[in-house]
Amino acid sequence: MAKELKELTPRSESYSQWYQDLVIKADLAESSAVRGCMVIKPYGYAIWEKMQRILDDMFKETGHMNAYFPLFIPKSFLSREADHVEGFAKECAVVTHYRLKTNPEGGVVVDPEARLEEELIVRPTSETIIWNTYKNWIQSHRDLPILVNQWANVVRWEMRTRLFLRTAEFLWQEGHTAHATCEEAVAEARQMLEVYATFAEKYMAMPVTKGVKTASERFAGAVDTYTIEALMQDGKALQSGTSHFLGQNFAKAFDVTFTNKEGERELVWATSWGVSTRLMGALIMSHSDDNGLVLPPKLAPFQVVIVPIYRSQEQLDLISAKVKEIMAKLKARGISVKYDDADNRKPGWKFAEYELKGVPVRLAMGGRDLENGTIEVARRDTLTKETMPLDGIDAHIETLLNDIQENIFKKAFDYREAHTVTVDTYDEFKEKIEEGGFILAHWDGTAETEALIKNETKATIRCIPLNGDQTPGVCMVTGKPSRQRVLFARAY
Amino acid sequence: MAKELKELTPRSESYSQWYQDLVIKADLAESSAVRGCMVIKPYGYAIWEKMQRILDDMFKETGHMNAYFPLFIPKSFLSREADHVEGFAKECAVVTHYRLKTNPEGGVVVDPEARLEEELIVRPTSETIIWNTYKNWIQSHRDLPILVNQWANVVRWEMRTRLFLRTAEFLWQEGHTAHATCEEAVAEARQMLEVYATFAEKYMAMPVTKGVKTASERFAGAVDTYTIEALMQDGKALQSGTSHFLGQNFAKAFDVTFTNKEGERELVWATSWGVSTRLMGALIMSHSDDNGLVLPPKLAPFQVVIVPIYRSQEQLDLISAKVKEIMAKLKARGISVKYDDADNRKPGWKFAEYELKGVPVRLAMGGRDLENGTIEVARRDTLTKETMPLDGIDAHIETLLNDIQENIFKKAFDYREAHTVTVDTYDEFKEKIEEGGFILAHWDGTAETEALIKNETKATIRCIPLNGDQTPGVCMVTGKPSRQRVLFARAY
Repeated sequence: MAKELKELTPRSESYSQWYQDLVIKADLAESSAVRGCMVIKPYGYAIWEKMQRILDDMFKETGHMNAYFPLFIPKSFLSREADHVEGFAKECAVVTHYRLKTNPEGGVVVDPEARLEEELIVRPTSETIIWNTYKNWIQSHRDLPILVNQWANVVRWEMRTRLFLRTAEFLWQEGHTAHATCEEAVAEARQMLEVYATFAEKYMAMPVTKGVKTASERFAGAVDTYTIEALMQDGKALQSGTSHFLGQNFAKAFDVTFTNKEGERELVWATSWGVSTRLMGALIMSHSDDNGLVLPPKLAPFQVVIVPIYRSQEQLDLISAKVKEIMAKLKARGISVKYDDADNRKPGWKFAEYELKGVPVRLAMGGRDLENGTIEVARRDTLTKETMPLDGIDAHIETLLNDIQENIFKKAFDYREAHTVTVDTYDEFKEKIEEGGFILAHWDGTAETEALIKNETKATIRCIPLNGDQTPGVCMVTGKPSRQRVLFARAY
Repeated sequence: MAKELKELTPRSESYSQWYQDLVIKADLAESSAVRGCMVIKPYGYAIWEKMQRILDDMFKETGHMNAYFPLFIPKSFLSREADHVEGFAKECAVVTHYRLKTNPEGGVVVDPEARLEEELIVRPTSETIIWNTYKNWIQSHRDLPILVNQWANVVRWEMRTRLFLRTAEFLWQEGHTAHATCEEAVAEARQMLEVYATFAEKYMAMPVTKGVKTASERFAGAVDTYTIEALMQDGKALQSGTSHFLGQNFAKAFDVTFTNKEGERELVWATSWGVSTRLMGALIMSHSDDNGLVLPPKLAPFQVVIVPIYRSQEQLDLISAKVKEIMAKLKARGISVKYDDADNRKPGWKFAEYELKGVPVRLAMGGRDLENGTIEVARRDTLTKETMPLDGIDAHIETLLNDIQENIFKKAFDYREAHTVTVDTYDEFKEKIEEGGFILAHWDGTAETEALIKNETKATIRCIPLNGDQTPGVCMVTGKPSRQRVLFARAY
């Protein structure tokens, strides 16, 4: 029964059902009583906390500080920036009242007398309320730059939701910076893209392609949107983080100017950038398999689990004494480790449980190990195991964790390489897009051609890559000139 | 001009204006465009982050994990627990619609067709949504205890707001635990009260009195509310953290049962506990003075600031070289330090700025110091300074920071001792309450007497202290028997 409970739908049968099974059964998240809002469970949240801590350190190293702005945005603020309201008005949670009252028949109803003069929007993103605030913070060039980040919840009333990937409420960070010059703002937006790419590759072990969005895929209110795009195991792309150069759009909308060194008033330049709990979905889909989650050691809530295999309390005591020594050595190397000596579950159940939860290394110690001075070492990524001498086990595991981190990156990298093709004709494009993966092709730079391709193939331009081949060519659809190949895929 | 900008209303003139001035001028927080919602500025948020990190570590040490539950609560959930809805219905932000639409005349309006079937409440606290979730997590005694905490924003539509002390939206943590037995739940509630008390005294340097709330001051839905109460410099009490034993009230309301070891179904026992950004107000009002903020070193964003005093670039370079050495030594001791060599502000301006911001230790180095191998050391709490030899300065500052932490605790402790009186008659009570401070007096245990005292004197029973004198006596108002003295004060 325990085994069945833990079984996932195989990816080959239904990738989306496998994903759903995995998120639920590995105790990462679940749906709540509120449509589209999820509960992030302790094990899932522990992974998110690791991500937060690392990103937060990276933001601080690049000179940013955290702050906190209101959850609510006056309705009128949204309409100040034309593209922005266009982008967000259709999916806003709107607060209209500030009181309930008890119904004479029991139950509670909204008190019609407690209607707000102006409705409040639950923030879908905070540019408007923040730029309205910055107006008071910025007078002179000496007040610039402002380098602020916020960790917060936001709400976008999505109709079709999926745990982590698309939820009505999600957690994220949003950086909002203000600069004296265009160049400085562009440099900031690009710097934060680099931070995201480094985080994705170094910590999530997830290779990403850096690029610029086309006009139709831009953030509502941005001049340029930079993105990191990752390829999931089912051949679909996942936009994993974006950094926006906002130009002077929000400064104009909220009348934010500064006195430059020459004593003249100028509009302020802006960026914003964010990653969200969507990264959890990206992490899960980059590495996991039919047995469950596969976690990169750098983001695992605990990197090593130790399971004792014993026949008597006496034997358990002997094993536990040995385990205690091993744990002390591992902790001294900064390795996080859990000892599961719970007596209400069999070792086989525990093995399946930690496999499902993606713990990178599992150690098991039994009676024979005690006699021989050995321990069984199993790695989650390759599902292989070997018996090792206890002597030097801590150094071995430190190396092993690094190997696992590298190996799962390499696996994801090789997958992406194997699923990235270059095509020159639209017929070939239509054929290849059915196989999934990234396609590099020439495009004439128009929104019309982009829309046509999307309508006919469901593929979108994920980005215009910043690196790689920049050779000009001709559009695969219209034959018109193309500056460089762009990256197409079907996407989440 | 710089000086004027930084001047605060003296406390003797208006304590509440002094507080308001300080919060704004020390860059801690400000009001926003949304009624009752504040913006927490980077410097203020850095203090809150320190608090969060320390509390989070303490929660984890006591076995808790973090999770995240929805921002929204279906309206019907609130009414499930009778006291709970009574307590929160009057101050709820209510989401009624999920879309805006563009008005033909321009601007955006709420789309009347996008009305929610059931209104959603922005969480004022999360017991209801969490217990509705726990119902699915708990089947057997093996699923217990559940020890979960959440860091989140909550909204209570307060009519009179004050930065940090009472805001419509605030940040907090809320622990929600589930237990198999009454005893275990009570022990949990008391343990978390101890965690809060330790945090307040050891880190915030703020002495607190631990106690139990009377029935009329209890959390809506609790069987018992434990509290820590602190005394502010104006003689008013501030409730700084509460921990609730919820009995089986929420288990009943959401039908949460478990199978015990004997195979019988039982209702689950619960606790919840929280502290909020209100602690920022408590911290400010416990230690600060007419020159600005006074921060305990353990919560200061940076503990030491170094200001160079120079006449030429050459001199600055020499000073900077020395400072670099000092900083390396301080950092090696885990001391956080900022070097302010900005050339657009005079040293006097910087001194005032860091005094206002409560930086515990200020170092200044000038030409004479360079010659003599000395540095000026100023401490914020006593506003004293002395010139010290550079040799051994790092060890000296480490000791000094500990001294400051202890000194400001002692000052607050002595203040509280000097402003706590024991009275036996109601006449004396009415006289003493005008002077501010804590009053220990006997009370007959009835809500009627408690309400009478509150109506006549504006004083409330802050708590029935857990420690201290437990001798019985007679009520100062009615002469009826009293089990022990209780703690009265006027409160925030």
